[in-house]
Amino acid sequence: MFDQSALPYLLQRNTIASLSGSGMHIGDRRYYPFEKQSVRCDSVEETAKAIRDMVTQGGGPLQVGMTAMRMLARQIAMGMQPCKYETFETSCTVLSQARPTNTTLSRTLLRFLSQLCSVYPNKVLDMNTIVEHTDCIIDEFERQFDQDYDAMSNYGSSLIQDGDRILTTCFAEHSFFLSLVKAKNAGKRIAVAVCETRPYLQGARLTAPSLVESGIGCELITDSACAHAMSVGKVNRYMTAADVVAMDGSLANKTGTLQNALCAKHYSCEYHAFAMSPDSSIPKAASIKNEYRDGKEICEVRGIPTTAANVKGWYPAFDIVPAELVCAIITPKGVLKPSDIARYYALHTDSPHQSGEKS
Amino acid sequence: MFDQSALPYLLQRNTIASLSGSGMHIGDRRYYPFEKQSVRCDSVEETAKAIRDMVTQGGGPLQVGMTAMRMLARQIAMGMQPCKYETFETSCTVLSQARPTNTTLSRTLLRFLSQLCSVYPNKVLDMNTIVEHTDCIIDEFERQFDQDYDAMSNYGSSLIQDGDRILTTCFAEHSFFLSLVKAKNAGKRIAVAVCETRPYLQGARLTAPSLVESGIGCELITDSACAHAMSVGKVNRYMTAADVVAMDGSLANKTGTLQNALCAKHYSCEYHAFAMSPDSSIPKAASIKNEYRDGKEICEVRGIPTTAANVKGWYPAFDIVPAELVCAIITPKGVLKPSDIARYYALHTDSPHQSGEKS
Repeated sequence: MFDQSALPYLLQRNTIASLSGSGMHIGDRRYYPFEKQSVRCDSVEETAKAIRDMVTQGGGPLQVGMTAMRMLARQIAMGMQPCKYETFETSCTVLSQARPTNTTLSRTLLRFLSQLCSVYPNKVLDMNTIVEHTDCIIDEFERQFDQDYDAMSNYGSSLIQDGDRILTTCFAEHSFFLSLVKAKNAGKRIAVAVCETRPYLQGARLTAPSLVESGIGCELITDSACAHAMSVGKVNRYMTAADVVAMDGSLANKTGTLQNALCAKHYSCEYHAFAMSPDSSIPKAASIKNEYRDGKEICEVRGIPTTAANVKGWYPAFDIVPAELVCAIITPKGVLKPSDIARYYALHTDSPHQSGEKS
Repeated sequence: MFDQSALPYLLQRNTIASLSGSGMHIGDRRYYPFEKQSVRCDSVEETAKAIRDMVTQGGGPLQVGMTAMRMLARQIAMGMQPCKYETFETSCTVLSQARPTNTTLSRTLLRFLSQLCSVYPNKVLDMNTIVEHTDCIIDEFERQFDQDYDAMSNYGSSLIQDGDRILTTCFAEHSFFLSLVKAKNAGKRIAVAVCETRPYLQGARLTAPSLVESGIGCELITDSACAHAMSVGKVNRYMTAADVVAMDGSLANKTGTLQNALCAKHYSCEYHAFAMSPDSSIPKAASIKNEYRDGKEICEVRGIPTTAANVKGWYPAFDIVPAELVCAIITPKGVLKPSDIARYYALHTDSPHQSGEKS
């Protein structure tokens, strides 16, 4: 297993989410690296709101959701919440709806509920054991996540060649960072170009500082400079996370991924996306539920306006990338061509690896 | 000729540059629309610095350069500058070097010097007539510019179809705005999607507010959302200015134009660029001199940092778009396929239309 200290600050488990008394703290990615803040949540509803409000994003909501289950168990044990299966079921629904495109959290929460039913026959909970059992399930989930990150980053680092100049979008989370660290530790010389990723600047604020922290050479570029970078040889490889992968090998990821993937194909740069598993309920690109957020969110940056007050914005939060633009998906089961996704995953919907992407 | 009042505030001649005593004011596009400021320049050196510092950009430097010639003539008449041809010649060199990619200003200044030589045989100037003659030359240039804008916007508006949803990058200046106004006045229903155009946000700050001012429906999008917009049919046409056009029909324009042109081709959206003339000294794409600016400029927005202080940026100021991605260049001589540029322009290097692009 990988060394947890190889992860940058932002990906440390306690940075993403941590219990605090009967509540929890969520690391606030909106102000990083300028401020290391967290948002306190005392209920699942507050947690869902924090996810909707972009306090955390990408793979963050998965860890936040796991911590929310631990929080809920404690609140039940303290008598603050009804000691009923429905308490968990309703909370899982609320959390799952917080951001619709990335289904990792919702699929993992369904697995959690399923495991809870195994522990408590007829869905009858016990407030004296609920914390112990919830922690046990989540501990095992987290162990699986780490195992998946380790496997995926072994595949990722083996794809990276000495001298590679890798473009990335948004904040590609654990498997991407571990891939880079492992490639670097294997003596490969690598450089990363990071798209700033408007409007929330995850590339500029999260990825680039975390790469510097990890000792990996990087340069920030505007989202508009990706084709330019490829055209002059500044970039020869493209790697991202995927918020969701459909069974035809198409995927959703942060807006900008589609045009970068198109340009990557044009300039013969390989494009690989990391995903812990596809969503077997999503057969094809057209079935992915995309999130369109308030256009006002793109009319400002770090709270200051970028345009006149009477200008309207349009903000698709994710891109749908068709399978033909993806070289392969890096999964815990291997580096799979889009056309192989269904074969490797369709028959194993209850496998331990059905945990999800970008986590 | 078009009605000058059809132009938005930013493209009014006096907004771009105006004489003031023995100096001049340059409209400061860096703070628009939040503040309507101008920068005062009392010398050609200060004017060149203002251009380098992005006080004005795109087509702005052409008008600024013309006004600088009027300023210089007045300074000579007042005895503030040597009454010598070299005073103009040196000043033209200083201005031409201020931003290297767009050659419109430098080519127009060469024509100015040539006309000055025609007025004053043996390059012997006369401080009593220099203002009158300089104004006469520049007046005629400006009349030609307006004539070209009028012709190009007639072509541009005829390309625009009822129901078109047009993507644009940066601030595409006179011919683009007049095309939209003429198309709208002809009863065509049009909508414009504007890329915000990081790092200086010309799309968000200049284009979108100017479109609202002109009563043309528009929405702001991030630079990363262009392919998305095309993929869902939100955009079906792409139009930009061009900072320079080579004789093979390739062109340079603001970074982002290359990836948008690539995506436009993929999604069968026509891409047209406005240019008053190609640069006959530039045979092909590889001969275009691109400007790489300080990477620090992309690590902030409106003066506030977007990343950690130890992150480095990389900032190519323009994209080189190969001819195969361009449907046609809209010129005063017509809508020319890239392969027709050389035929229409190579033999006419001294024609009145050799004034340049993006102005």
